[in-house]
Amino acid sequence: MAKATSWSDPPTKTLRAHGVKVRKFDTSATPGFKGNKRAGEELLAARALVLSDLQEKLYANGRSGDQRSVLLVLQGMDTAGKGGIVRHVIGSVDPQGVDHAAFGVPTEVEKKHHYLWRIRKELPRAGQIGVFDRSHYEDVLVVRVHELVAPEVWEKRYAEINKFERKLVDEGTTIIKVAMFVSLEEQKKRLMQRLERADKYWKFNPADIDERAYWPAYQAAYQDMLDRTDTEYAPWYTLPCDHKWYARLAVTELLIDALQSLKLDWPPAKFDIDEQKRRLLES
Amino acid sequence: MAKATSWSDPPTKTLRAHGVKVRKFDTSATPGFKGNKRAGEELLAARALVLSDLQEKLYANGRSGDQRSVLLVLQGMDTAGKGGIVRHVIGSVDPQGVDHAAFGVPTEVEKKHHYLWRIRKELPRAGQIGVFDRSHYEDVLVVRVHELVAPEVWEKRYAEINKFERKLVDEGTTIIKVAMFVSLEEQKKRLMQRLERADKYWKFNPADIDERAYWPAYQAAYQDMLDRTDTEYAPWYTLPCDHKWYARLAVTELLIDALQSLKLDWPPAKFDIDEQKRRLLES
Repeated sequence: MAKATSWSDPPTKTLRAHGVKVRKFDTSATPGFKGNKRAGEELLAARALVLSDLQEKLYANGRSGDQRSVLLVLQGMDTAGKGGIVRHVIGSVDPQGVDHAAFGVPTEVEKKHHYLWRIRKELPRAGQIGVFDRSHYEDVLVVRVHELVAPEVWEKRYAEINKFERKLVDEGTTIIKVAMFVSLEEQKKRLMQRLERADKYWKFNPADIDERAYWPAYQAAYQDMLDRTDTEYAPWYTLPCDHKWYARLAVTELLIDALQSLKLDWPPAKFDIDEQKRRLLES
Repeated sequence: MAKATSWSDPPTKTLRAHGVKVRKFDTSATPGFKGNKRAGEELLAARALVLSDLQEKLYANGRSGDQRSVLLVLQGMDTAGKGGIVRHVIGSVDPQGVDHAAFGVPTEVEKKHHYLWRIRKELPRAGQIGVFDRSHYEDVLVVRVHELVAPEVWEKRYAEINKFERKLVDEGTTIIKVAMFVSLEEQKKRLMQRLERADKYWKFNPADIDERAYWPAYQAAYQDMLDRTDTEYAPWYTLPCDHKWYARLAVTELLIDALQSLKLDWPPAKFDIDEQKRRLLES
């Protein structure tokens, strides 16, 4: 089994967004990890168990009155691997403890509400790990790139989102935001695969190709998003995603770190154990 | 690896509720399975992959306009292992494709609504596997046993539930209902374990012991439930749960059978593949 020392530096440190330049970001790097793919996959299997144990403790505490929760926000261009993170990282914990939500094009009802309305509805419950596949950041990304609202509208959203997240954190939610980046070339490869394999056609949408023409505009939108909403209380991590194994391992580590920082223990018994044993034996 | 032939008869056949007598039900049996625990666990690992592949196909079709879904209803007394089924069976498929809901004591808001209101809100979306940890059947079980409503109220619910499920099935949901049974003795053992292990205290509720005094009343309520709501379109399976490994394996097989009966294939491309390849290469 790979040792934890395969990390020279933890992802909490190497992936923090501080001053990252999106246009120059190396999407094929594996920051802080010394091993190869195989070492990464072996380590992932081991760390998934650690994550699963921590998640159970979070859940146990949630069931015992602790209001805290964790929210993983995944943002990224098509094919960056958001679904793979959900499947292979979140898939390693108990489904009962996961509140998953995917945010696509807003429905007619959603459009009639403030853009945070649908987000609030899906916030994780106490003791849960929430996972957002896309999020409120769509409203400063695709909405901005395609000019779905006027600049003065999306312009004020950054501050609004910071305030929103500040409140969530104050209410007990640990927020981890992951911006997932693949190169334009790697995206082409992955889209091509969807066109070459019958089991992948369903994932392909011709509009995904149109989006590629907006790449620079998206990069600018991601840059502003990172510059203006990377806060100490709700930090952004920038994740190179050309190597899926690395992306999955790194997100696992980010979640483990977030859960460990909660210093969770098993909730104490709220009853007299000996008395209950006696009652049980007599029942 | 254990062979599929470890089954002499499939759970779809051996576990069907037809005329089962709850009071005489052998909770320690492993109907239709010839192997031991180890063989069961090995087979489960292999079948989990089959389940996962089928689930992905269901999901893919759901994303491509197919309205069908699957709903697994889990009912059972405390410690029967509902949570274990969710964790170890449902946990083997992609969390994105699971709509999980647990139904506890109704909230104040839920109490102001018809008992099916909260159920309808949690029905699986197209392409999803829905999992109900407890369900609308609480309203003819705990509600009946503790006389929370008058007999003439719960009495008419059986027919109402049948009608409700008939409609769901007509709308494209495949329903699998699993009634999970442990013996009174096995329940005592499992509750005792929760009192002996610090990592299990949180699962223990002193009221669980009080419930044991109502065992015969619950058996009668389960019997009526099975007799009156076991239909061809929404069948009940009665699952012996003293052996957790068997319960998990059997539910896996029930789900596999339900998914296979949908005759799922990968959705065809809704676009001209060659044209899209050309566009992609030029992008």
